[in-house]
Amino acid sequence: MIDCRDRENTPVVGAGAPNMEDAVLDLDLMRELSVKTESKIVLLVLDGLGGLPMQPGGKTELEAANTPNLDSLAARSDLGLSRPVAAGVSPGSGPGHLGLFGYDPLRFQVGRGVLSALGVGFELGDNDLAARVNFATLDGSGKISDRRAGRIPSEKGEELVRMLNEKVDLEGVETFVRHEKEYRAVVVFRGEGLSGALADSDPQRTGLDPLPVKPVEDSPKAERSASLANAFIEQANEILADQHPANTVLARGFGMYPALPSFDEAYKLAAAAIAGYPMYKGLARLAGMELKKEGEGIAGEFETLKQSWDGHDFFFVHVKPTDAAGEDGDFERKARVIEEVDTLIPDLLDLRPDALAVTGDHATPARLKSHSWHGVPLLLHSPYTLPTAEVFGERACAGGSLGVFPAEEIMGLLMGHALKLNRFGA
Amino acid sequence: MIDCRDRENTPVVGAGAPNMEDAVLDLDLMRELSVKTESKIVLLVLDGLGGLPMQPGGKTELEAANTPNLDSLAARSDLGLSRPVAAGVSPGSGPGHLGLFGYDPLRFQVGRGVLSALGVGFELGDNDLAARVNFATLDGSGKISDRRAGRIPSEKGEELVRMLNEKVDLEGVETFVRHEKEYRAVVVFRGEGLSGALADSDPQRTGLDPLPVKPVEDSPKAERSASLANAFIEQANEILADQHPANTVLARGFGMYPALPSFDEAYKLAAAAIAGYPMYKGLARLAGMELKKEGEGIAGEFETLKQSWDGHDFFFVHVKPTDAAGEDGDFERKARVIEEVDTLIPDLLDLRPDALAVTGDHATPARLKSHSWHGVPLLLHSPYTLPTAEVFGERACAGGSLGVFPAEEIMGLLMGHALKLNRFGA
Repeated sequence: MIDCRDRENTPVVGAGAPNMEDAVLDLDLMRELSVKTESKIVLLVLDGLGGLPMQPGGKTELEAANTPNLDSLAARSDLGLSRPVAAGVSPGSGPGHLGLFGYDPLRFQVGRGVLSALGVGFELGDNDLAARVNFATLDGSGKISDRRAGRIPSEKGEELVRMLNEKVDLEGVETFVRHEKEYRAVVVFRGEGLSGALADSDPQRTGLDPLPVKPVEDSPKAERSASLANAFIEQANEILADQHPANTVLARGFGMYPALPSFDEAYKLAAAAIAGYPMYKGLARLAGMELKKEGEGIAGEFETLKQSWDGHDFFFVHVKPTDAAGEDGDFERKARVIEEVDTLIPDLLDLRPDALAVTGDHATPARLKSHSWHGVPLLLHSPYTLPTAEVFGERACAGGSLGVFPAEEIMGLLMGHALKLNRFGA
Repeated sequence: MIDCRDRENTPVVGAGAPNMEDAVLDLDLMRELSVKTESKIVLLVLDGLGGLPMQPGGKTELEAANTPNLDSLAARSDLGLSRPVAAGVSPGSGPGHLGLFGYDPLRFQVGRGVLSALGVGFELGDNDLAARVNFATLDGSGKISDRRAGRIPSEKGEELVRMLNEKVDLEGVETFVRHEKEYRAVVVFRGEGLSGALADSDPQRTGLDPLPVKPVEDSPKAERSASLANAFIEQANEILADQHPANTVLARGFGMYPALPSFDEAYKLAAAAIAGYPMYKGLARLAGMELKKEGEGIAGEFETLKQSWDGHDFFFVHVKPTDAAGEDGDFERKARVIEEVDTLIPDLLDLRPDALAVTGDHATPARLKSHSWHGVPLLLHSPYTLPTAEVFGERACAGGSLGVFPAEEIMGLLMGHALKLNRFGA
């Protein structure tokens, strides 16, 4: 079973910078066809919404929840089941949201370092190179004996991060270290002429020497960045020498802050994001959305939506507790969160969005206690729909008029339903 | 709302010639696997077939129509909902039909000039460069004050086109101007060594100078073609000097007549086209189909099909009035056209086609009065089907054994059902 709280062994597909040239092509059609109009779009994301029955013959979390408002809306909406990333593949929050925003997550690969920095609320800029850092243990012969430094508590991790921030001094760049949790941290190098085309120092196994960071492309930027990363690790080793078991750092997932085409560029949308957690705020900021103060709890987010209504034509609203309940394996709590959202749907409809999607970024079935590869229910409401069911649930969505389809298509559908796309060809 | 009768502001994606190298790859599999056999395929296209309910809880045009023959056929057919071009995108007739013929419409981009020429029935040849032309108004200072010349009536447009045809004289090429409607016309330059890699002269806004036509690639052909286009505009300005408000022309959508792989090359099919409107005849000719005299009305088309039966193994039959009714917002009339087609289905089945598709090139819901992005119902009949419903309608198709799928796949399905494809691999 995949344990999403321990992703140490997940390989990163594609080292270095994402292939921006290919990726931009995906959005060319939207860029060409989209027009600025008065209509407004809401993308309401219940994180990890997709679910599974706990027993054969049972209902999913969404099917079991009492959702009179969503059911009534489903009867006036298009339904479908979206597939994030690829068949059988469980997406992280980064790829899950990039797909929802219309960026193919296999092309727009955002490095783990960047996602970690976004996750702790660090405000990355265009010249920033980020990497994920683990505190780890070197034995007397310089080999790695524990890749997680005995899973040191978060207080210890914080203390070590403070030490590194005080003492690390690299020539020509600013260095920021931020604590994530326990043995996990993130390092950001800020300066001109850096590159994310670097291989990890973490060999992914114990009993081996740490690897020197090496460039994976032949460029002066990558050479310089590799030298900086190695100098950082060397200084960290000196600073942490007496901190056994956390006497070294392993670096992985190097990446520059990626310049994604913004919602304004790609869709001509003035987008607002209402999200409570740093990771989702960071992902929204990658897409050029304006962050709104989120308010207290789910009801507070909906209140913020109402207050922001006049200034924008696209709203990304992120509800986290569905995912958290799924990860805890708490089927009932996940259903209750969905029910809480359901009670707020009438307020949302009072705003009269022209196109509204209610969906998730991936499935987090309580049955699996983790993100999963299963289809994600989508309800798409506009005046131009072909309803197929009287309820909002995975099985109703599987038979819907949108079928089973890639999650990257949701933005195109929303743009079409909001009448924001010109005709393609004569 | 998108108004399909005034598409002046729709940008053409990708200037110049389509990328034929990429595009041909799409058909390579068909080319490799297809075999010439005795079996016969009919592709019956009800233009704009896909629809929507007029009110929540209502039926679509196809669902509301009384279609006993199509329903009975559906119970012996595969059903599915096809998606043309891309999610949320409303296709024009060109991309809609290219997709039905198995050519990816995002790769095989046919310029607006070529489509306009096809639309007025001009017989384009391999050396022809076509552009869409608008009569427009220049003010005293040479700036564009009206991009549509006050929407001059068609009679005036025809007169101006006659003047241009008489007087324009360009060195090294023949020039043909043809009237489309009101202020719209098309110009075709015929000669060796031309290129469609040209930018528009139409700046898309009033208050600006017209743009000189510039090459968008660095080639002698494009340079020469730009000079010819600019000379044409210069001569037109002299000829039209006294014709205010129609005292200039704006040119856009330059493109060469594209050499698509023919049905014979791609599928080994001797294809016939039965269509009443120039645009669809032109699109069929692009695919190398033989045009048949269409006969009177829909019944006449079916009679032509019968008379052409022995000489071909593929038949494209195009029924236009469904789309026209949809564009007029006339739900009842669209349903009646579908009912008329239904009465002719027994005659069609008497011909014993080995594989028969009944579908549309896109949706034209009366609800929207325009082409739309919605799914298009497909009924595919052969002896080898997996029926899932007793009726032919959008919702039955959404739950069909073909699911929701890209329209470019229809030709492959027809070829398979007609047993015209070899197995792929051992």
